[in-house]
Amino acid sequence: METVELLKELAVPAETKIVLLVMDGLGGLPHPETGLTELETARTPNLDALARQASLGLTTPIAPGVTPGSAPAHLALFGYDAVKYQIGRGVLSAVGVGLDIKPEDVACRINFATMENGLITDRRAGRIPTEEAARLCQRLREIRLPGVEIIIEPEMQHRAVVILRGPGLSEHVSDTDPQVTGRPPLPARALAPEAEATADLINRFIAEVNRALAGEPRANTILVRGFGRLPAIPSFNELYRLRAAVLAVYPMYRGLAKLVGMTELPAGKSFSDQVAAVKQAWNDFDFFFIHVKGTDAAGEDGDFDRKVREIEAVDGLLPELLALNPDVLVVTGDHSTPAALKGHSWHPVPVLLASRWARPNPWVDGFGETACLRGTLGHLRSRDLMGLMLAHAQRLKKFGA
Amino acid sequence: METVELLKELAVPAETKIVLLVMDGLGGLPHPETGLTELETARTPNLDALARQASLGLTTPIAPGVTPGSAPAHLALFGYDAVKYQIGRGVLSAVGVGLDIKPEDVACRINFATMENGLITDRRAGRIPTEEAARLCQRLREIRLPGVEIIIEPEMQHRAVVILRGPGLSEHVSDTDPQVTGRPPLPARALAPEAEATADLINRFIAEVNRALAGEPRANTILVRGFGRLPAIPSFNELYRLRAAVLAVYPMYRGLAKLVGMTELPAGKSFSDQVAAVKQAWNDFDFFFIHVKGTDAAGEDGDFDRKVREIEAVDGLLPELLALNPDVLVVTGDHSTPAALKGHSWHPVPVLLASRWARPNPWVDGFGETACLRGTLGHLRSRDLMGLMLAHAQRLKKFGA
Repeated sequence: METVELLKELAVPAETKIVLLVMDGLGGLPHPETGLTELETARTPNLDALARQASLGLTTPIAPGVTPGSAPAHLALFGYDAVKYQIGRGVLSAVGVGLDIKPEDVACRINFATMENGLITDRRAGRIPTEEAARLCQRLREIRLPGVEIIIEPEMQHRAVVILRGPGLSEHVSDTDPQVTGRPPLPARALAPEAEATADLINRFIAEVNRALAGEPRANTILVRGFGRLPAIPSFNELYRLRAAVLAVYPMYRGLAKLVGMTELPAGKSFSDQVAAVKQAWNDFDFFFIHVKGTDAAGEDGDFDRKVREIEAVDGLLPELLALNPDVLVVTGDHSTPAALKGHSWHPVPVLLASRWARPNPWVDGFGETACLRGTLGHLRSRDLMGLMLAHAQRLKKFGA
Repeated sequence: METVELLKELAVPAETKIVLLVMDGLGGLPHPETGLTELETARTPNLDALARQASLGLTTPIAPGVTPGSAPAHLALFGYDAVKYQIGRGVLSAVGVGLDIKPEDVACRINFATMENGLITDRRAGRIPTEEAARLCQRLREIRLPGVEIIIEPEMQHRAVVILRGPGLSEHVSDTDPQVTGRPPLPARALAPEAEATADLINRFIAEVNRALAGEPRANTILVRGFGRLPAIPSFNELYRLRAAVLAVYPMYRGLAKLVGMTELPAGKSFSDQVAAVKQAWNDFDFFFIHVKGTDAAGEDGDFDRKVREIEAVDGLLPELLALNPDVLVVTGDHSTPAALKGHSWHPVPVLLASRWARPNPWVDGFGETACLRGTLGHLRSRDLMGLMLAHAQRLKKFGA
């Protein structure tokens, strides 16, 4: 039996409140001059004080050595087997932009692209502004194909998402992106016999798009990829009996959280807005997932100092969260994004679990990768955190007599 | 999904080099007078310096409390589920002596033994020299049985390996070794209905052997054991996209490595020869597995001091390996062989992973069991090392979007 199924059996309702604060890509690598990671470099008096009373530990998101994308890393934090529940980018995008995707729908992502004489010359159409993509999407919405409803919504810049709705659709369709410029787009192909009709439909859709965009200077075609269907993920409420809310500035994280049944709350534009929204909704939910993107973005850019500042900004507002007196506060990342690597990595992620019932580690000097090595939680898989959050919130009954 | 299958999906080719240096039976127990293990007693300035910049940790080979043989312990280091892929001793021996075993073959090991009046009086025929066994094998090669080809090759001393090749063979045949002297050898018995013919064949083979060796003073019969077939193990190249080479002085380890698709390189007679051979072949492979037997042999003999010296000898040549500038160097054991126990044990094994991307543990004073407890890798299963090696060599793409 998977742990999550055991938790489902044991979860009971309670009055307690859990806050999961995820600084995306929190884990790092030491700066060559100081030997300190981004988190260890940051001046974080509030987190440091909390760390001594809290339980610290390190988590491996998926498996040792495996660098996760944001979606599996978050699913693991939410207690799910991220290898079992793999979610296509198209579905994530669809939920992220607020589309109401249904189990029989097939979703995919489209990139506006530039084609000349049948060859793709720019796979991102010069990264056209979001407004331009919105205008183009409006034109594509006029395309009609028999037996299927086509829902189109722009995302950021040259990206948009498409949902196909109708009987007999299959997600087993190949991408059309040739991955390099100077080549023609690939035709959509059926990857399973039952997908022939859907592949055919996609190719007809692309032909219609090409006709509709023929006069455009940059975005005169689309590349289609990431076909997928809504996976049957049991919800937070079903598994853990939690009324959960998400506060995320970025659409993808809101989408992911909504897939597991979280309610979207207005996250504004900053961590400060998110904290304010949590305060506002404090009485209406049991579980608050707050997602902070800036740490990951800085790490991806290789900007050690900016990642440090992003962490410091969160620390500055921590007292406001603590003032709400959550029964459990977890501060962690979904994965590591060391500035030195300029990308996600496989390195274990620091985690802090504050609760009245946490075994403290008063010997640590603060919140950081090295301190977490000596924390009372030890080394865990990320998906084990959910059980610990529930336990510390006294939301799990005893197993067995 | 098993982690190894996930690694298979994520592995990508790269230019990076990985060296896995296994000191067989490296882990130990403290000397009663000093409280230091063999590894902690050894003067290892090179390993100690490396340990501070590397990531240290401890690995459990199979499961807590389980003492592994060499084959499963190495399979775990190679990333495989050693409980799933169990390899008979006969198959290991066959591959080890360089026989080309095919999927339909059945392999077994034979021991030359002494029989008097139908009772086994020496199960090892006085440990006859390898040359004598080679001469006897030559005579046994004259034996012909209908419907089967019999391939015989001497190993060390009284040991030899036999491959049966032909249609309808089964490996489900019992050993004939009575395990104690003063008893008659056991008949080979079918352990499954489809093995009747093979058991019968083995008994007829033994009868022929007894006739052929009737005049021998010591080795006048054989005991047969370890029937097995080549397991269908996916190769290193298939799983990890690594061109892997093995440098092992002992046949069994070469055989094992070849089973997972490694190429055998000339290992000479010492670690020094092995290092020279690695240098020679540096450009031709991505992964080098170097096996050092002396540590285990000393531990098996209960010789604490000799095990210390074996470790020191490896340390002395470490700079030569480091001069090759491998992207990842792992120094570890396959299992523990504490001199105090005079045999393999279940104790976790120290591991050192050196890489530009390793989270260092500058607070440790060197490479040893106690230092490894405070290392940044924490406590792992041995089979999780493979993912970490690939990750640090930047040979895994991101999992999920």
